[in-house]
Formats: sequence, structure tokens, C-alpha cells
Amino acid sequence: MNCELVSVGTELLTGDTLNTNVMFLSKELSINGFSVLYHTTVGDNPGRLKSVIMRALTRSDLIITTGGLGPTQDDLTKETIAEIFGMEMEQRPEIVAKLKAFFDRRGVEMTENNLRQSYVPKGGIMLPNPRGTAPGIMIEKDGKTVIMLPGPPHEMMGMYEDCVEPILHQLKNQLVISRYYNLSDIGESTVEDTIMDIIDRQDNPTVATYAKLGEVMIRLTANGDDPETINALLDRYEKIIIERFGDHIFTHSQDSLDVTVGKLLMQKGLTVALAESCTGGLVASKLAEIPGISASLKMGLVTYSNEAKMQLLKVRTETLDRYGAVSEQTAREMCEHLKEISGCDITASVTGIAGPGGGSPEKPVGLVYVGVCAKGKTTIKKYLFEGSRKIVQLRTANKVFHLIREAILDKTE
Amino acid sequence: MNCELVSVGTELLTGDTLNTNVMFLSKELSINGFSVLYHTTVGDNPGRLKSVIMRALTRSDLIITTGGLGPTQDDLTKETIAEIFGMEMEQRPEIVAKLKAFFDRRGVEMTENNLRQSYVPKGGIMLPNPRGTAPGIMIEKDGKTVIMLPGPPHEMMGMYEDCVEPILHQLKNQLVISRYYNLSDIGESTVEDTIMDIIDRQDNPTVATYAKLGEVMIRLTANGDDPETINALLDRYEKIIIERFGDHIFTHSQDSLDVTVGKLLMQKGLTVALAESCTGGLVASKLAEIPGISASLKMGLVTYSNEAKMQLLKVRTETLDRYGAVSEQTAREMCEHLKEISGCDITASVTGIAGPGGGSPEKPVGLVYVGVCAKGKTTIKKYLFEGSRKIVQLRTANKVFHLIREAILDKTE
Repeated sequence: MNCELVSVGTELLTGDTLNTNVMFLSKELSINGFSVLYHTTVGDNPGRLKSVIMRALTRSDLIITTGGLGPTQDDLTKETIAEIFGMEMEQRPEIVAKLKAFFDRRGVEMTENNLRQSYVPKGGIMLPNPRGTAPGIMIEKDGKTVIMLPGPPHEMMGMYEDCVEPILHQLKNQLVISRYYNLSDIGESTVEDTIMDIIDRQDNPTVATYAKLGEVMIRLTANGDDPETINALLDRYEKIIIERFGDHIFTHSQDSLDVTVGKLLMQKGLTVALAESCTGGLVASKLAEIPGISASLKMGLVTYSNEAKMQLLKVRTETLDRYGAVSEQTAREMCEHLKEISGCDITASVTGIAGPGGGSPEKPVGLVYVGVCAKGKTTIKKYLFEGSRKIVQLRTANKVFHLIREAILDKTE
Repeated sequence: MNCELVSVGTELLTGDTLNTNVMFLSKELSINGFSVLYHTTVGDNPGRLKSVIMRALTRSDLIITTGGLGPTQDDLTKETIAEIFGMEMEQRPEIVAKLKAFFDRRGVEMTENNLRQSYVPKGGIMLPNPRGTAPGIMIEKDGKTVIMLPGPPHEMMGMYEDCVEPILHQLKNQLVISRYYNLSDIGESTVEDTIMDIIDRQDNPTVATYAKLGEVMIRLTANGDDPETINALLDRYEKIIIERFGDHIFTHSQDSLDVTVGKLLMQKGLTVALAESCTGGLVASKLAEIPGISASLKMGLVTYSNEAKMQLLKVRTETLDRYGAVSEQTAREMCEHLKEISGCDITASVTGIAGPGGGSPEKPVGLVYVGVCAKGKTTIKKYLFEGSRKIVQLRTANKVFHLIREAILDKTE
């Protein structure tokens, strides 16, 4: 069933509000087997809203709108859609009663304009909104279904769960299952190249790749009448993906690499300590976002200056003088000394030039050394990243997690 | 000038990616005086993409697309738009050379599909992309302007600043000037209430408030024919804003609080060291994002465990035993001892319970102590934050920056 999302609100067109509603609804619709073919955003302008809705009705079976249901003059969604369908508006006493109760509970006097929310197109179904004042509305007419939801995300999501999801299940009988494979240390174009044969003949399941900084996600999605058939379809493709990408796949969940590594550390009962120069605590803070990580993350040292490297990590003056702070030797001493200081199972170090200043012909901006010390072995890797200071830091952090994962799995050369 | 944004990518329709590009571009276009009337999102489907672009051409003068410029089979934006305008594709040798250099620098072999990115519609203008492989394209034809930008936000935003903003200034003759006031330690509704009289009668300049975590930004935008008239309009309102908000305004730029504090440290030649428990390096890593900060940020200690607090910061066993790791006393010892260890002008400490686990009735999740030591004075503040682990960490970091700023300005009680 083809579906289309229409977001109504001038605040979206002026860039004052980030439209998180479409992502939420798109994901839910996709999971439930609906094909979302378009998102359209239009302001609080009845003429343009009307033309957008009429266009949507020509190409989609299910239209979900968000926004424009509130009490103010510029909230026009239901009036506009009622007009298109030739429906009159009627006041519903039960909504009036709810509105009055809502304001009574808050001890606030209800302004007159709030009563606009008690009107529903005749023949439309009211969807209750326990989290706000504007109810949602569903209209089924001429083979089309239009569902109008309020704009505030928590009201919209609540109404989705309460009312819309059950409606979707009725509209569509087919089952959809997705599986995810998250890869690191490989680029999106290589991933695509490697499974081009599957992508080219895709039908059911469908295959898609998504790139994030330093990670690529493959999504397999199949539909069918029962879980067994769908899973058998997915199994066949999963086998190929695992065969071709092997250890590049760091998780079969949607977890990012840092979360995967954090969970792996906790699961294996391993402790970790970090010594960061140019990432300035980014690696530690990414781990620190994971609930329960205090069991594994014991300490982090942000040694930005040479003095801090010497004072906290006992990096030798000779090493800094001879090879410089950004060198294999310094990265090595940083993680090896941190091992002694912390006693942790795994230690990692970062030293590099994040830029934009500080580069030289021999040591350009983007040059980074990452060291990992585990199981009596030290691995030092040299990278040259491009991009802004922040991108260099993020790419570096990504490599630290990659190397920690390799150390845990004992895959370092 | 009427403008329309077209986002291309199936990952947006499946809800796998949040569309932050349209918010960024909408805001920039609005600031520059363009009316954005529609956003449309369409998948990697040439037929539907074509119909969306053709529709956009009937109602808008400027169309900006994002996405669909990459190397893969489903990247079809420029081919589709070239077809609509009846333009042929031609390979540009300078793009081929850049692509080869890009892959050479990374020491990765370029797969054949990357060459697709070297084709540009004949007569189109190539917009360079120093942050990625896919260049942007501008086409001006039949009184319409179409600008195609890559989908990855950092590439898109970089290209916007380098190429698109200058193009917008040429397209539009009227002058628009915006001024920004960034406030901390005050809520958005209070800000709005305080200047409701201005907001209510706004015309030229317009006034808008934007809330971020722990910060509120006020934007004043005026338009006119010459800078003098516009600045006179802005001056009148600026005076009111400064009078009413005083020291809550931490900057007249768009800089966030962390960047403002980092710049203030560098500007005043002050050194800083950080001791972080529950924020796990977040404060240090936020500072580390600022170019040149190595002059001020000397060291950071992530002391997650009690052992690390004792070993690295010499927090006394008695203090931890008697008051606990999350206490005013521990926060005090952390920043005072760090002062001795680092010799920095300012030291700050954080200890708290970010959650979701680890809370108790006496010390609930969200309880945080922040300490700042400067000019021979130690200030400890206690906070109780609500929200997820990440939100508690972000709010805490915000308060650290707020207190460091107060210490620099000598405003601590």
C-alpha cells in the first residue's frame, strides 16, 4: 500500500523546527510493510496545503498528516481536508467536555479559540489525544485513507501507538521482517560492489546500504504471510552477506561501533583505559554514554600538552624531542605506560594533528597514530584523515574502537 | 524568491535517516530572505524523482536538492535533472583527477563506479566538494535555478558555506542582516515572556527564539536597502535585549557556550584542566573540538572508578568512604587536587550519577556535583537533572561551562 506523509507548519519551512515526526512515522510504516513514497512539507497556507493534499490523493492510498490541528487561526489541516472531500464540519460534545476537563485540571481558563478543536469532519473518526488538546482524525473515503495527527512529537507518537498502529495492522495483513548488519573498516562503495549481484536482482528481500562516518549498514527486508517463509528468505541472503564480509560485520544489531565495543568489553569482563591527545576525551566520552560502562572504563587521560604526556603518562623527554608528540614512538609509550599505570586489560592511545593548524609537510593535518595494548602485545597504526578538525577526531575515535575490537577478538597482526 | 527543497534518498522514506539537511537549508534560506514554500522527499526512483522536480519547476524559482549524487547505481539526481532540462552529461577531467587523488591519498583503490561522479550536465556549473567525492552542480536555465548538493550533512554544509551562500547573495538583491544573542542559565519560556512585547509587534526586525539544551538563542533579523538603515533598526531592539537579559547573554555570535568559553580561555591566556567522572571526558572533548585550544586545555582526567579518583587525583579514601564518590566533598577534592597536579589557572570537576542504574533514594539518578577552582576560590554546585543518561551528561557539561565562564568573569558567589 502506497503511503505519503504530509507535514504542515511554517516553522518547518523556516528551519525553526527539526522534523523528527517523518522519521518516526516512516520507520513505523516501513516496519509494518507500507511503502512510503513521498514526504511533503507545506506551511500554514490553505491554498498550498490543498494542492499538496490533492496531489497526494492522486498517487497514494494512505496519507498521514502531522500538524495544523491546534486552536489557532493558522491551524487549517482538518478544514482543508474536509473541504477536499466535500465534508461538513460538526462540533462533537464529547471533545468539548474533554477540553473543558483538560483546562480545569490545569486550573487555567480555556480561551475561546480552543473550541475550534472540537470540530470534526462529518463522517470522520475522532482519535483521542490524552497528551494534548487537539484530537486526531481519520477519514476513509473513495478508497483513500487520511489520518491527521497533531504536530508535537510526544502527542503524535502517543497517538500513533494508541490508535494508528492498530489501524495499520487492519489496513495491511502482510508481515515484514528486517535484519541489520553493521560493518566497519570498509567503504560503502566497496560494500555495494561486493553485493552488486544481490542488489541488482533484489525484489524480496530488498537490500539497502547506508553509510555513516566509518561505518556501513546493510539492511535486509523481506515480507510474506508468515515468519517462517520470511526468515527462510532472509537466511539465504544473510549467509551470502556473512560469507562475503566476514569480520567486517561487527554487529547484527543497529548498534554503532562504539556501543558494540562497549558492550563487548562489559560482556567479556574486560577493563579499559584511554590516553587521548588530539581526540581530547572523545573516545572516553563515547564509551561513557553506554549504561553500565563503569564496570569496564576505569580511567582516561587527556594529555593534550607535552607536559601532561610526561607528567601523567611518563612519556620520555627523549622520545618527544627525537620523534615528536605525533609519532609511533609516543603513541607506543602512551599506551604501554598507561597499561602499567592503570593495570587495565586493554589500553589505547591517540596522538595526532586534528588541525586546522599545527601541520607541517612531514606531519600534515590529519596524521594520527593510534595505539592499542592488550594481551602483552602493542599495535600501533598510522592514519591520514581528511576533513575538518571534528571529522578527523570522529574518524580517529572510530579507528580506536575498531582496533580495540580487533584486540578483543585477537585479530591484530 | 520562491524556493523549494527536494531531498532524494530511500533511506529518508524508510525512516533510517533523520533529515537534518532541510532544517539547515531552510534556516539559511530564510535568514537570507528566501521564502521556502515546500520540502519534498522522494526515494532513489527516477520516475518519481522526475515528477517531483517537474512539479517543483512549475511553482518555485530556486530548487535545492540534497542527495543522490554519489557513486552508486541508485544515485540518479543529476541524470534525472539533466534529462528534464534536455542536457547531455559530459565527463569533466578535473573531477576524474580529483577522484583519483582522493583515493590515492587514502591508499585505497578507486572502484569503477566512482567515475560516475565525474559526469556533469553540459552547461552546468560544478561546485567543488573538498569533504567528499561527489561534487555539487548548479544549473541555470529557463529562469530557474537548480542547485544539487550531496546528502551527507558535513559535505552539504561545507559546500553551502563555500559555494551556495555566495550564490544566494547574488540571486537576491535585498539586504538582510541578522544578529544573535546566546543566553545560558535561563529557560526559553522565560526568555519569550520577557520580550513578549517585542515578539507581538514584530515586523521588521523579526525576533525569534530557539532553545537548545541549556541555551536559548535570540535572533534579530532586519531587511532593507542599505546597511545603515538596517543596523539602526537592529540597534533599537538590541538595546532592549541587552537591558533585559544582562549577563545571561554569553555571546553576540552564534557560538555555543562551550565554544564561547573555549575562546574566552584562549583570549585571556588562561589554562584549564578537567577531572570528570560521570561525563567521562565529554567536557574535555567539547573543548578539544575548538581549533587552537591546546594553548589552554592542558589535561583532562577521566576518573570513572574510585581507584582512579584516588590514584590520579589523590582523593582521600576517608572522603570516599564517608561521603561517597558523588558528594560535594569529593567534587571539591577532585578540583582542588587537580589544581595542584596541573598547575592550571582553572580546574573543574564533575561527579554524579548519570543513570539509568546506580541511583538510590538519597542519591538519585541525575544528581551531579560540579566544582570549579580558580583564583584561590573553589565553588561547588549541586544539580539534579532529569532525562536520559546522555541528557544528564550534556546538561552537566553545560553547567561546567557556565561555571567556568562565571569564574573567568569573577561572578561566582
